[in-house]
Amino acid sequence: MTVKERNRAAAGRLFTINSVTPEVIATATLEIETSSPGFYEFTREAARFIAEATANQGTLLIFLRHTSASLVIQENADPDVCTDLTTALTRLAPPDAGWVHDAEGPDDMPAHIKTMLTGVSLQIPVTDGALALGTWQGIYLVEHRARPHRREIVLQFIGSRR
Amino acid sequence: MTVKERNRAAAGRLFTINSVTPEVIATATLEIETSSPGFYEFTREAARFIAEATANQGTLLIFLRHTSASLVIQENADPDVCTDLTTALTRLAPPDAGWVHDAEGPDDMPAHIKTMLTGVSLQIPVTDGALALGTWQGIYLVEHRARPHRREIVLQFIGSRR
Amino acid sequence: MTVKERNRAAAGRLFTINSVTPEVIATATLEIETSSPGFYEFTREAARFIAEATANQGTLLIFLRHTSASLVIQENADPDVCTDLTTALTRLAPPDAGWVHDAEGPDDMPAHIKTMLTGVSLQIPVTDGALALGTWQGIYLVEHRARPHRREIVLQFIGSRR
Repeated sequence: MTVKERNRAAAGRLFTINSVTPEVIATATLEIETSSPGFYEFTREAARFIAEATANQGTLLIFLRHTSASLVIQENADPDVCTDLTTALTRLAPPDAGWVHDAEGPDDMPAHIKTMLTGVSLQIPVTDGALALGTWQGIYLVEHRARPHRREIVLQFIGSRR
Repeated sequence: MTVKERNRAAAGRLFTINSVTPEVIATATLEIETSSPGFYEFTREAARFIAEATANQGTLLIFLRHTSASLVIQENADPDVCTDLTTALTRLAPPDAGWVHDAEGPDDMPAHIKTMLTGVSLQIPVTDGALALGTWQGIYLVEHRARPHRREIVLQFIGSRR
Repeated sequence: MTVKERNRAAAGRLFTINSVTPEVIATATLEIETSSPGFYEFTREAARFIAEATANQGTLLIFLRHTSASLVIQENADPDVCTDLTTALTRLAPPDAGWVHDAEGPDDMPAHIKTMLTGVSLQIPVTDGALALGTWQGIYLVEHRARPHRREIVLQFIGSRR
């Protein structure tokens, strides 16, 4: 907060609040097939869900039902960003680091660690019928396993309708 | 998305949506006693809360009121996974790394870093009266401090009732 | 769970549940000006939003519309903690690590990595008209870029009113 904003806050109301009545909880599932480790954007599919649910104001919950893949909001302008993010995760959770759990292959335990560090749920506000993402924000499924997988995502909107 | 799914999306509706009316916000607290660093599963207790709240469709928020322990969803099949996750966190936030904040012991600052990297809140969809967790997903409190602690968790369901 | 609590759970109800009816979804935006990398606390502003929205019971979603800054709940007692957290993030995502994406300066790609590791959304329960934060928990915007930025945050409460 700037000094100006703090002064304004002291004087009266700080926020312009838009209020609506919660009307619906809409739930659906989305499946994404992955071919190899990396970032798979599904911003368009999430926006589509919001449109089909006739969502207006509220929150979108995105939940991934797995322990070796995760969900991340990141820059979707330059694809090099996702390449570097994948490199960064591999450096933080290398395959050859003496993990006890190795029965499912050398990529399995690092996949669990990467999932722990990045998480399996996202919450995005919906305002005026659209996801309130920033200009450069995209929604990604991040596959951490070497082999192809079919990943299941739950989408759930709570809020008002158009 | 596969090519087939993209074609289907272009043709019409992509999602099968289940819609209900929000009826209740149910809130309770859960305390967990920890004895040493590591993972403490409480999936059963979270499911119990959902049952006692007669929850049907909606979202469960789980919030930990601490800064040196965290909440993680991870594999609950092989206990070795949690052992390796604990090792991974210690490698990312080692105790002997010259931290400025050391008044509360060598395990305190690493505990804050581990908490920052893994987070203190989880959101899980509830569908048909049950947590929509994947087959291998379990809910864990992760204790990062060396000494025993009593940790306080807020559970909150927003949704429809059975 | 202690043995005592498990016994109690087996015998009957485990939770004391407070239930209310969802009445409102209140949304507003907050802008924070940053001057350099580091932690900027805005717990007071979040509490102010809860007060102005006449929130009683429910959830506060805080969402940051950027990919090179993030949101973290951490200790707000000793400022050294935030200094060490900043150091820890720089060690996990160093500037001189051969990133492919370097067109926006050496601090840009590390900023994206730090954002991926810490996240852009927080959910905090609201009980009895107040944020249900722990004694030592504060809400922070974490700036990862070297130059000053104006960061936009969406605040959204879903719940009952006072």
